[in-house]
Amino acid sequence: MEYDEPLFFKVMQYAANADRDVVDMVSGNPDWEPPQALRDGLHEYADADIEDFQYPPSEGLRELREEIAERRNVSVDQVVVTNGAGEANYLAMARAMERDAGDEIILTDPVYPYYPGKTTMLDGEARFVPTERDGSLDPAKVRDVASDDTACIVVNTPNNPTGAVYGRETMEELVAIAEEHDALLVADEVYDHFDFSGRFESALTIDSEHRVVVTSYSKSMAITGYRVGYAVFPDSHVKAAKTRHMLVNVTGSRPAQQAVLHALRNTDADYYEETRAMLRERIDAFTDALDAAGAEYSRPDGAFYVLARFDDFPGTLDNVYTLIDEAGVAGMPGEAFGTARDEWIRFALVTPRAEEAAARLADYF
Amino acid sequence: MEYDEPLFFKVMQYAANADRDVVDMVSGNPDWEPPQALRDGLHEYADADIEDFQYPPSEGLRELREEIAERRNVSVDQVVVTNGAGEANYLAMARAMERDAGDEIILTDPVYPYYPGKTTMLDGEARFVPTERDGSLDPAKVRDVASDDTACIVVNTPNNPTGAVYGRETMEELVAIAEEHDALLVADEVYDHFDFSGRFESALTIDSEHRVVVTSYSKSMAITGYRVGYAVFPDSHVKAAKTRHMLVNVTGSRPAQQAVLHALRNTDADYYEETRAMLRERIDAFTDALDAAGAEYSRPDGAFYVLARFDDFPGTLDNVYTLIDEAGVAGMPGEAFGTARDEWIRFALVTPRAEEAAARLADYF
Repeated sequence: MEYDEPLFFKVMQYAANADRDVVDMVSGNPDWEPPQALRDGLHEYADADIEDFQYPPSEGLRELREEIAERRNVSVDQVVVTNGAGEANYLAMARAMERDAGDEIILTDPVYPYYPGKTTMLDGEARFVPTERDGSLDPAKVRDVASDDTACIVVNTPNNPTGAVYGRETMEELVAIAEEHDALLVADEVYDHFDFSGRFESALTIDSEHRVVVTSYSKSMAITGYRVGYAVFPDSHVKAAKTRHMLVNVTGSRPAQQAVLHALRNTDADYYEETRAMLRERIDAFTDALDAAGAEYSRPDGAFYVLARFDDFPGTLDNVYTLIDEAGVAGMPGEAFGTARDEWIRFALVTPRAEEAAARLADYF
Repeated sequence: MEYDEPLFFKVMQYAANADRDVVDMVSGNPDWEPPQALRDGLHEYADADIEDFQYPPSEGLRELREEIAERRNVSVDQVVVTNGAGEANYLAMARAMERDAGDEIILTDPVYPYYPGKTTMLDGEARFVPTERDGSLDPAKVRDVASDDTACIVVNTPNNPTGAVYGRETMEELVAIAEEHDALLVADEVYDHFDFSGRFESALTIDSEHRVVVTSYSKSMAITGYRVGYAVFPDSHVKAAKTRHMLVNVTGSRPAQQAVLHALRNTDADYYEETRAMLRERIDAFTDALDAAGAEYSRPDGAFYVLARFDDFPGTLDNVYTLIDEAGVAGMPGEAFGTARDEWIRFALVTPRAEEAAARLADYF
């Protein structure tokens, strides 16, 4: 299994070099505006005193951590501001592995490819649990695989690539399994602002020394390049996580943290609601056209991806290239996300041309 | 041995809470202006298209890597832009350790405390080589300690805390020792713009598959909080280092990279020369006053720290607190940097009040 980004680049480059117009639905890069207050915050910071150009505290700007703690109803001491959710997941998984409490990491299939990549880097052994056809995760299947060799369980909800939102009962069960086997449940909630089902509830509401919650501003503020995320660790693990963060990165980048802090304080709920409304429209338009194309698909409860399956057209890299050349639509091959969805192709709704893309697919199939 | 930053914070906090005026010479945070073009670059970026707010390539903005490659006369493929020199050192040391080519890491004493911290995190065993009284490193002593258990040799030149600049012959010898034992020599050159001796030469000029060069813009542009650094890896190690960088951090923060790119292109040599001239004046003033105080000290050939030794006043944390309370000068205890300089106190020349601080020391002793 290749890591996410190289395969992204490969497909995106192929699409860019195509001899025709292509609707790019490959990456998870938002195509909408960040909050205006983010740009304002960056301007303001560019004129700041030189002290503000020096190291912030290793665990992140104090004011940013206080904003986060207040909004999430957690202790400020538990919050570690990281270089995006990518680093937050790494810190959580590394913490799980360094305790001599097993070396297996339970992941779902389909899976966000960075998780198995990190597992390998940490000398862990990945154990995959297939999700249901509708994308939901049956905790009983996780329980079957879990043992005292389990160091960590990593789930992503709302989910990339399936669009599933795991309900509260599922998350409670996962936390219970982690507790039974002295494992850490890592809940990666980077799509927490993109719940269309009304069922999403952060795992922060489940009190346990065995769950870590990870999120970032990459998607919610449309700033994947800023690298501002955070993890909320239980008391018994936060010190070790902060030490690793300091030894790997010293601290995160301050211009981005300052801009996010300003945006957090000066952006109202409308911004997020408007983004969701826009994505709902894209989902409707795209899935209507997929109906017309006779494709099977999963209507996302959250996040902004649609998995679609076309008869006799499995989700291989070759078929993705064929779609680029012959239909003018670029997606991600399902085989990039494991074996469970290798018949499928993932389309990211990060273009205003989603409806046009679906019409092209309908024409082609 | 505690890590650098927590002890920094401890001492800085003690100084801030003191009942009197204190000259702060604790941290390595520059107190001078960044290049104007850095602020301009940040303003320009704040108004950029939304595509520029998304993920840069994992290994860093292409244009930034090209600027670096051209200036350093290396292949662009060898350049990995990192979250400061901190991450670059981590990537290099982790790469050295993951090859099954030994688990010992040779460090100097005195040592920059992050290196032993990273060594422990990587399950390595630190072997310390004492430097000479003038701060220079005798490669023969490194050779005595090196063996096929040596995975890595980490040196910092110009050196924090001694101010020593290792000459070309020393660096050639260290590379040769690394080659003999299949180790990686990591040359941390973050103070490369602060050479007062004229003897500094980057290890990049020594061609070898066994040396990694690390540096950053934190000190040269007075932006320790931006976290933009880079490593130049040999061909045989760069791919593995890029993979780890991607799996840990995905990529570095883009606002900071864009600002640094703009500053690199639009800052002339005068900026760096003026900073050096200012630091030379501070060194002169501070060491003249130390002479008056009857202290032993090392006049730095590079970087911006002065180690000073006062009779019957060893460099303990307690004595540093005493100096804060009774002399109104805050430095870092020499014992923070290992055993070799535990009689000494390090003063960072990051304040225009360096001369005043030295006068206070002269009064006190």
